[in-house]
This record gives sequence, structure tokens and C-alpha cells, in this order.
Amino acid sequence: MKLATLRTGAATTTAAVLTGAETYLPLPASDVGALIAAPAWRVRTEEAVRTAPASAVVQVSGSQLAPLLPHAGKVICCGLNYGDHIQEMGRELPEYPTLFAKFADTLAGPSDELDVHGSDRVDWESELAVVVGATLTRADESQAAAAIAGYTVANDLSMRDWQNRTLQWFQGKAFDASTPVGPVLATADEFDGSGFEVRGYVNGELVQRGHTRTLVFGPARLLSYISQFTTLRPGDLVLTGTPGGVGMGMTPPRFLQDGDTITTEIDGIGRLENRVRIRQLALNN
Amino acid sequence: MKLATLRTGAATTTAAVLTGAETYLPLPASDVGALIAAPAWRVRTEEAVRTAPASAVVQVSGSQLAPLLPHAGKVICCGLNYGDHIQEMGRELPEYPTLFAKFADTLAGPSDELDVHGSDRVDWESELAVVVGATLTRADESQAAAAIAGYTVANDLSMRDWQNRTLQWFQGKAFDASTPVGPVLATADEFDGSGFEVRGYVNGELVQRGHTRTLVFGPARLLSYISQFTTLRPGDLVLTGTPGGVGMGMTPPRFLQDGDTITTEIDGIGRLENRVRIRQLALNN
Repeated sequence: MKLATLRTGAATTTAAVLTGAETYLPLPASDVGALIAAPAWRVRTEEAVRTAPASAVVQVSGSQLAPLLPHAGKVICCGLNYGDHIQEMGRELPEYPTLFAKFADTLAGPSDELDVHGSDRVDWESELAVVVGATLTRADESQAAAAIAGYTVANDLSMRDWQNRTLQWFQGKAFDASTPVGPVLATADEFDGSGFEVRGYVNGELVQRGHTRTLVFGPARLLSYISQFTTLRPGDLVLTGTPGGVGMGMTPPRFLQDGDTITTEIDGIGRLENRVRIRQLALNN
Repeated sequence: MKLATLRTGAATTTAAVLTGAETYLPLPASDVGALIAAPAWRVRTEEAVRTAPASAVVQVSGSQLAPLLPHAGKVICCGLNYGDHIQEMGRELPEYPTLFAKFADTLAGPSDELDVHGSDRVDWESELAVVVGATLTRADESQAAAAIAGYTVANDLSMRDWQNRTLQWFQGKAFDASTPVGPVLATADEFDGSGFEVRGYVNGELVQRGHTRTLVFGPARLLSYISQFTTLRPGDLVLTGTPGGVGMGMTPPRFLQDGDTITTEIDGIGRLENRVRIRQLALNN
């Protein structure tokens, strides 16, 4: 099952389920987060698909897709998590996951233009993201695995100048509407557990490719770890880190230019395609 | 004017205004964040105080005080911000504020017991916190100053073992219900701009004392800076950093023991008094 959040007005959205190539059936919930927080949402969604008249299905263009979880209570990201990339850099595998936070305001839609104000070192980070489907407090890995609602695609766009102004990355990672996420939540039952190939492109050129089987901390391990200190709830989002191939790591470093398009893709889930606009600030902060 | 959020049931709260030593008038808003997001809240609150019958006023004990902003959309903290402490450590004053994030779940009430699971390096950080009163996007300092609803007291309790497991502090700073905040929001008009003395005590012993006049980034500067990358909204909370005297900086380092009480105090606002419980984990994460 593939779920999305559709824009229905300037500040309104609806949850919807994919029924065809670009067709969705709207569901009685304001977004995917609200949908999966309700009891028996799987059964009720299957029932809705079975019983809806053909006229209820809508054709959807990219710009109508909202951030998958526009009101996510927690967005937590893991850095330095692709083992092959860490080892090729000659570093040791970490004992603990490196975690940082974003807010729901940081999220953007899967086809949105990403307007970045006041940075000239904008970099891409293609990632698998995990959507939490049940409340988790100090959960073990098997409880965490059972609580995964599904998976989506994200790009943890990073303003490297702001990220590296201090030792804490947060300010370079939390620009409003800078992290596209979607296009859909692909429910966990659709996958066999062998993992995901994550690919990133800049203006159509492949720049990142990694497989989540090389993650040091896989989805269930990450959710279990995070739940030791903070409760995860349905609709929370955990980004699992990015493979090698970011612009900062190139020689010389390569950053996005105004008008560049980044594509972030995972087979079986879908693709984000975002044009990046670099706006300079009058105020010199 | 001093505003608080009172517990009215297991999961319900109300905003209230202080009318006497421990007496409050409940207001028609679910918490202080909801109150100050509504138009004309100052005038309507003054009107409520003038017209309420004496019977509407309630006596409140410490345990009835909820986290001041139980649903804060953003909680953003600044580290390394007391200039005198930075200079006494022989470091240079920073050019940019070091920022990290917490979630609303991280907040606790001003008299709550703080239950910490799985850390044995629990440390105190007494802080002034700023409550945002208006929406700020890429604001300059004067706009930011005008948008300060008021001030409160916070203790950025820090699990140093978790904080230092990786380079990113987030996991040691975001334990659920670990950051007491309150007891009240003291509105900005009550202060003359000369700043605040922040004091921290462990079991009654003074361990921290600092004055916000020595902040490298004062309240308005911090709000302006943050608003360059993310929108601040009414009820968001910004913690301004802690002065010298944390346990980690002592020789030898001193951490809180199960049953210790931390007191965090700012004249003109109020005092937090929290017993800390250290619970060990069965699961070795």
C-alpha cells in the first residue's frame, strides 16, 4: 500500500492512497500522520479502496503532493551510517548512532522548489526514511521492527556553511522547507527485508548510490536506540543517513547552484525531484 | 503579568494567570502557548483578572504546574553563550551561536520529579529561556526584541554520557521529561532590560551563578539569528545557555545522584525545584 499527503488548499491537506500511476483515493484523514495514528487504518484503507466509486479517485500532479508528514512530531536524523562509505574514508565504524533533530517545518513536498536563503554551500544527502507506526518507549529491536509503518524517500539538504559554523549541525540542517520527503509511504509489508538501494542525482547525473544493507544502524536498531531516551509515536520520521557521494566530499567540493535539480530515488518507493533556488540575504547574519 | 500552565487532569491543562502568592485565575486556553497565540491575549487576560469573581481563583501546589509550554512547536537551545565563562576557560568568543534542538516531549513541570533512565552522568544547566510571542521569519534584532512574549526559567538537564557518545549533543539533551521549565512566563514588560541573574543549586548548595548581561548572544540576537533559517512562532521556546559551574566542569566531575534535588532560580521570574531519579536500564543500549 502506498500512502501520500495531498494538498487540497493553501493550508489544507488530505491523506490518500495510491490507486494507479498518478491516481489517488483521498481518505478521511488530514495527512498520512493522522491516518496512521488512527486504529485499524490498514483495514479501513483497504475497505475504502474496495468500496470507493471510480469517481472518487483523483489525478494528482507532483505539485499537489505535500510533505508526507507535514505535522511530524519528531524528525530525527542519523549521520555517518553507511558502513562502506565510513570504511572507504578510513574511519572506524561507530559504536553509537550520531543523531540530530529537525522540525516539521523543515520538511518539503516531493516536487517542491526548495528556496534556500543565505547559504552558498547547499549540498544533497539522499536517504531512506522510516515512518514510525506505533508508540515506542524503551523498545527492543523486535518491538521496533514491528512498529515500522513503512518507508519513504528523503533528501537531507544541508547548508554546509551553516552546518559547520559551530560543532552542532542543527542550524545547517533545519532550514524551513528544505528537506523533501515522499512521494509516498510504502508500507513495510511490501518489502522482503533485503534493504533498499538509495540513489541521488544532480541535474540527471548520478552522484550517490548506496545500499541500506551496509547501514551500521538499520531501521529497527535506530528506532530501538532512539526510543531509549525519547518516545516515538505514529507519524514520527527517522532519516537513516546518506551514502557517499555528497558534494562536500568531492575534490574540489561541489555545491548546488541556483536552478539545479536534485533527484532522490529508491526502487519500490518512488522519487523526489526538487529544483533548488539559492536566495541571498540582505541581512548579513 | 505571570502566566502558567496548570494540570487539570491526566492529560489536560489550562492556561492561568498568577493573582497571588500561589493563586491563579484559570484562563480560556489549554496552555500558555495556546493563550499567547490568540489575538489580544494581554488585553483579554487583564480584563479577565479585573472581572473574575473571587471564587474563580484557585490555590495551586507545585505538582499542579505543568511544563510551561507542553506543546511547544520548537525548543531551540544555545550552548557556549556566557562570555565570562568562555573567557575564563581560555576560549575565544564564538562568532556564531551553537544551537541544538529539543522536542516538546523533553519538557517537564517546574516541580516534577525527573526520571532519567540509563544514564549515570546526569548534569545540571541552569538557564534563562525566552518565550516567542509573534511569528518571526528572517527578522532583524529590533523585530525579534518586539516579538519576545517574556521569560522563564529552564534547566537543560544533560546526560553527559549520551551527549558525548558522538559529536552531536542531541541524544544527551532530548531525554523525555528531563528539561523542567517554568514556573511562569513573566511577560517582557515586567523587566527593564538590564538582564537576569541565573542561579543553580544542588541539594541547596549554590553551584551556578551567572548574569545574562554577559551573554555573547542575547535574547533578541538569538531569536533574530534563528529566524534566518527557521520560522519562530508564538509559544516556541529558546534556551539561552548556561553559566559556569556545571558538574562536568568540576575536578573531579560531579554528577547527580538518585534523589538529588536541583533548584534553578531567576529573580523576578521564579524557581524550579526538581528531584532527580536515576533509573538504570535492563537493556544495554
